[in-house]
Parts: sequence; structure tokens; C-alpha cells
Amino acid sequence: MFAFRRTMAAMAPQASSALKQAGKVVCIGRNYADHIAELNNMKPKQPFFFLKPPSSIVLPGEGACLRPKGIVMHYEVELALVMGKLVRDLKPDDTQGALAAIQSYAIAIDMTARNAQDEAKRKGLPWDIAKGFDTFLPMSRVIPKAAIADPQDVELFLQVNGETRQQGSTNLMIYRIPRILSDISKVMALHPGDIVLTGTPAGVGPVQPGDVMRAGVRVGGREIEEGKIDIP
Amino acid sequence: MFAFRRTMAAMAPQASSALKQAGKVVCIGRNYADHIAELNNMKPKQPFFFLKPPSSIVLPGEGACLRPKGIVMHYEVELALVMGKLVRDLKPDDTQGALAAIQSYAIAIDMTARNAQDEAKRKGLPWDIAKGFDTFLPMSRVIPKAAIADPQDVELFLQVNGETRQQGSTNLMIYRIPRILSDISKVMALHPGDIVLTGTPAGVGPVQPGDVMRAGVRVGGREIEEGKIDIP
Ligand SMILES: [Mg+2]
Ligand SMILES: [Mg+2]
Ligand SMILES: [Mg+2]
Repeated sequence: MFAFRRTMAAMAPQASSALKQAGKVVCIGRNYADHIAELNNMKPKQPFFFLKPPSSIVLPGEGACLRPKGIVMHYEVELALVMGKLVRDLKPDDTQGALAAIQSYAIAIDMTARNAQDEAKRKGLPWDIAKGFDTFLPMSRVIPKAAIADPQDVELFLQVNGETRQQGSTNLMIYRIPRILSDISKVMALHPGDIVLTGTPAGVGPVQPGDVMRAGVRVGGREIEEGKIDIP
Repeated sequence: MFAFRRTMAAMAPQASSALKQAGKVVCIGRNYADHIAELNNMKPKQPFFFLKPPSSIVLPGEGACLRPKGIVMHYEVELALVMGKLVRDLKPDDTQGALAAIQSYAIAIDMTARNAQDEAKRKGLPWDIAKGFDTFLPMSRVIPKAAIADPQDVELFLQVNGETRQQGSTNLMIYRIPRILSDISKVMALHPGDIVLTGTPAGVGPVQPGDVMRAGVRVGGREIEEGKIDIP
């Protein structure tokens, strides 16, 4: 059954519902210098990672992000990689190997319970609850790989109630995709269907119930249809 | 495909290979008072949780736990619950609902990169790397539900090179199973096939490459065959 699931994921790259089949969602923290500054964080000497449960994924048409009682809920728009191959011990300079291991892309909003995360940081406790509430991972449909010629040269954006809050090029990542996949794959093998979130540019902030979020990605100034996220 | 995987997991409760199909592995920290004391931790005012990636699971016969370079690797034997139903917002006093949601059990060793975890705690960083290396979640075969009449009354044990290091009753859990499932399910829905680790009794410690670990569970003093873990 293990092999079977992996095969299904590999066979159906375009089925967005397959995103929920991910064996894991691995996310990098603090990967854009401007976002580090706004949260008063230190620039990490090396990348660090956390997990989000696949059960937190909300696909287009599935509804809103639910704010749990007492939670300050922040958005973080990110480029997501959907893996197409088993990756172990990738070399950090293996750009070609990294790109070959990516099956497709998506846009994701790494919703974060900021007050719960701040408390976890202060107490030295895990981040997983702060990152893992149900509906805390809105994702777009799958973006075909061919639609993004260079994943380090696309523009992410996020609007709240029609106002642009985040807008930044993936060119501003501190640790680029081959390094991210290298670091992860030295710790845990990446399997087909696994999802990797690559960090968020500046502009993160809170949303309230009823706020409308729109996020997406532009390539050469043109918005990609499959990358749209509309949260009612 | 989403529904399909869940269905497969629900249909094949006894197939141990299905454990690797888990949508997530959720673990409670510091759930036995004696273990809290040995790590000089504070007793948490409420339970806290972290995730392990399903890719870290090692099933019987699949080999050893690999110690990454520079890592101090600790064992933590735990009772694992394999969920059989979708659980949301379970009430903490709903003992019957909690038990009904469990499909089966297993024994697990929550291998932990203790030095990496200590550093993460100190820096307020996520625990996921320290908990998530490949081979850091040895599990037994699936234990049929009927083999454990009362999951709060079994004895966990772990031996290293024939010497008993951990031995404690699940009766010593600070937060019991209904409360654990309640707290998790208020944050993230538990789906069929998801795995919950319930904490470790005292006696955790390091293992070196070449050490032989044996872990398991006794019910009424008798070891359960399916619950055996043998790490070469
Ligand atoms: Mg964590
Ligand atoms: Mg993020
Ligand atoms: Mg543990």
C-alpha cells in the first residue's frame, strides 16, 4: 500500500486533490531577509524546518480559514514544491537534480497562530500546534511545472480585502531551492507527493474572520491561473 | 484519491505496512512525571504536541536506527494509537468516544536527536528536525485492539543490549488517552490511519550504532507478540 500510494501520486501530477495525499509538508522558516526583520528574528546561520500536517490543507472551493478562539492568525504566502521523485542526500549545488526532483508547483498560505508560536518560542516548545490547525494551509491548484521556467524568478503576492500586503520575488530567498531540498533530504527522505514550502517575503500580518484573502503568483508579470487562492 | 487512501487504511487494520500510510504522526511531550524529572523539564500546565514525519517509520525487519553524524540519539518507548475514525472536537471526558475512535495499537520508539532538540529549545526553534530523521520512528507490527483491554494498564519496556532501561505502566500517564485525543482533535482532525504517540516513561538515554534495542508491551505480565520491536 505504501508503494501503491506513491505510485498514484506520481501518476496523477495534475490532480490537485492529490495534494492532500502528501506524506508530509516540510516548511523552511525565515527565508526572506525582509520577513526576518519584520518579526525581529535573527537571520539563521543555517536553514531550519518545521512540519505542517497534511490535514491542515484547504483546497480551492473548500471554504475559509477558521480562526480558533484566542488565536492571532497570520498569513504567509509561499511557493510550494510538489516532489516527483525520492530524494535523499541531495548535494546543495545540484541545481539540476533539485529541479528534476520537482514534479509541479503550487501556491500556499502558511497560516500561523502567531501568539501561540510566540509562546512556543519563548518556552522552547514545538511549533506544530501553532502551524497545524485545521484550515491553516490553503493551497492553490497544482501548477504544471512547465508554467514556471525558473522558480527563483516568480512574484508571490497576497491581498487582504483587495489591498496588497505581500509582494515579493522568489529571487529574494536567502536559501535557494537546491539548498533547501539538500538540507531537508539529508535529514528526511523526500518522497513523491511530499510538499515543500519555501518561505515567505515581508508583509505578513493578521486576518480576521470575514477578511477576504487573495494570493497568487506572477511569471513575467502575468498571473498564473492555477496558482490562484481565493479565501472567502 | 484522498477518500481512497483513507478507505484503504480503514479496510486493512491489520496490515502493518499501512502504518507508513499515516497522514500524520502526532506525539505528546512530557506525559510521564518520572520522565519530566529526568530531563529537568517543567511539568506542562497543559499537554503539548509535536509531529514526526511518517517517512521516519521503520517497520520490523527493515533494519537499524541510523545515527546521523554529530547527533546524540535517545530512545523513548511509547504506546501508539492507530486511529480508525475521523475525530474532531472530542470531549476530554468522552472515554468511550476515545476508545471507539482507536482502531488498533502499536509500540513505537520516538527516537530523538537530544542535542539537536536541546539546541532547538534554547533557540526557540521547531523540534521537527530533532524528531524527524529517517529511521527515527521504529514501530512494531499492528496490535489488534482486542489484545489490549485497557490501554491505561499495560507495561511498556525497552532494553539496550539486554539491559532494561525503561519499564513503566501506561497507568502513569499525566494526561490520559481521552484527554490527549481531545486536545489534538480540537486543533487538528484525526483521520483514519493517523498515529498518536502517548509519551514515554522514565529511563530514556542514548544508544550508539551497534547497540541492540528491544522494546515491547506486557499485558497482565505477558508480552504481546505483535508489539515486539527488535533493532539490530
Ligand atoms: Mg515543531
Ligand atoms: Mg512560513
Ligand atoms: Mg516522546
